Amino acid sequence: MLEYSWFIDYAGTVSFAVSGSFAAMQRRLDPFGVLIIAFVTAVGGGTIRDILLGNTPVTWMRTTTTPLIILVAALISMFLRRGTERLQKPLLLFDSLGLGFFTLVGIEQASRYGLHPGICVALGTITGCFGGVIRDILLNDIPIVFRQEIYATASILGGILYYLFLEFSLTIPLAKLLTIGFIFVFRLLVVRYRWALPRFYE
Amino acid sequence: MLEYSWFIDYAGTVSFAVSGSFAAMQRRLDPFGVLIIAFVTAVGGGTIRDILLGNTPVTWMRTTTTPLIILVAALISMFLRRGTERLQKPLLLFDSLGLGFFTLVGIEQASRYGLHPGICVALGTITGCFGGVIRDILLNDIPIVFRQEIYATASILGGILYYLFLEFSLTIPLAKLLTIGFIFVFRLLVVRYRWALPRFYE
Amino acid sequence: MLEYSWFIDYAGTVSFAVSGSFAAMQRRLDPFGVLIIAFVTAVGGGTIRDILLGNTPVTWMRTTTTPLIILVAALISMFLRRGTERLQKPLLLFDSLGLGFFTLVGIEQASRYGLHPGICVALGTITGCFGGVIRDILLNDIPIVFRQEIYATASILGGILYYLFLEFSLTIPLAKLLTIGFIFVFRLLVVRYRWALPRFYE
Repeated sequence: MLEYSWFIDYAGTVSFAVSGSFAAMQRRLDPFGVLIIAFVTAVGGGTIRDILLGNTPVTWMRTTTTPLIILVAALISMFLRRGTERLQKPLLLFDSLGLGFFTLVGIEQASRYGLHPGICVALGTITGCFGGVIRDILLNDIPIVFRQEIYATASILGGILYYLFLEFSLTIPLAKLLTIGFIFVFRLLVVRYRWALPRFYE
Repeated sequence: MLEYSWFIDYAGTVSFAVSGSFAAMQRRLDPFGVLIIAFVTAVGGGTIRDILLGNTPVTWMRTTTTPLIILVAALISMFLRRGTERLQKPLLLFDSLGLGFFTLVGIEQASRYGLHPGICVALGTITGCFGGVIRDILLNDIPIVFRQEIYATASILGGILYYLFLEFSLTIPLAKLLTIGFIFVFRLLVVRYRWALPRFYE
Repeated sequence: MLEYSWFIDYAGTVSFAVSGSFAAMQRRLDPFGVLIIAFVTAVGGGTIRDILLGNTPVTWMRTTTTPLIILVAALISMFLRRGTERLQKPLLLFDSLGLGFFTLVGIEQASRYGLHPGICVALGTITGCFGGVIRDILLNDIPIVFRQEIYATASILGGILYYLFLEFSLTIPLAKLLTIGFIFVFRLLVVRYRWALPRFYE
């Protein structure tokens, strides 16, 4: 089943690239700017993870597949702007799948360096969420992930669950599948019911 | 005496984490956002230093002590918000001690790579100051260190003094102690008397 | 001829440092802030390239020449502010030469890691353009390179041309010279005739 992980990886990349393109077009960037924002949204999280780990040259540089996918996704977003806006729902699905998958990729990469599980979960969250953080910094916003939705929380909880699953002797592929499923469903529920962390300090 | 340096290190970490938490709560971030801002304020400077040097995986990932300290400091800041606001003065003391200590840690790490003393002082300053810079970027401000206080200047002067002390054959522990003391006192004087660099170009 | 490349390198560094100083003084930063912005504008692109490649300690740390040049350029900018404003035109020339040269430096460094030519062109563009991106982020702007001028486009087209030149069996020094010349002239034409990428998605 996890042989299909390349599909989820690419679907996540496409989804992040499209969401970046939309945000950049809203801010009236020029086509080059749109392309760059699409790019950093899609690969930013993994790049920060690789840099923190010293895993260089960073992953996206080692092949041309990911850059090409992002280029095509950004171009399609620009040419079919109207059309893609109707894709809001499938986009959310891809985005949530991408969040789940990227979180696991980050955890896996970090655990190869023999780091503590808590640190690995942090790196999973960075992989899943920090592309969006860089996008928001470049567009001169306070990153949305710090303000509104329980986006990162889905990633953190998923990471913790993953280690619990392994603790309970689940096989790695099954643990992965359940984790991706959890993050996916949790994220959709957050959006659907507008869950938010309580600001108990106000 | 320098055996107690772990105390200063942790006190600096706590102080930076608390100052990050306060800044984030003022901007009405959600609890996750507060935690992240606390984290980057406390470890950001050292992380940039490590990345520039190629000292990876970066320092804070190698144990769980620092992340745990930051987590606790951020949670206490959120729960006791009112109480901690009365701690303005001790906070400034910790912050100034932290600045001094982190500056020296940066110089030490850099000198292990055989870099020129001027570059080592720059890396000491980055270690001491750039956590606050990242905090301000994420909160969508022009970093305060570039605008108002002679914060970085204390760090730079301290670093230069440190090498002068070594030049005059002081022992390393004594030179460290005097440097931390200088940065600490200089920073307090800056705040007390509102010293500022002259904008001679206006 | 390319023996003179150190001249272009330093001229590019000076130009980027001066442009950074001007931007910082406009925002009323204090002298330390001006110095830092001059610094990141001049070395930021190369630093990101080095970090992505794992080429550490990053280049500017290995000697003191570059930092000294930037320090002097920033100080002169601050002391002779009025005078340097009249230098708008020579500045543009240096800036455009710098863009061409830094693009090639980036491509060369990247190709040493055996990366795909497309990736190398991307790293050349990052080397040439991202110092300005960091400058704008620190000054709390949406990076100008994403909004107005075909700045990065000159760099990308130049990089592609460079590989075409090699494909047509030009010698490396000649290919370099022609590439720098192309980027230089293209950039000047962009500024002269206010070329802009069409926002076809509006």
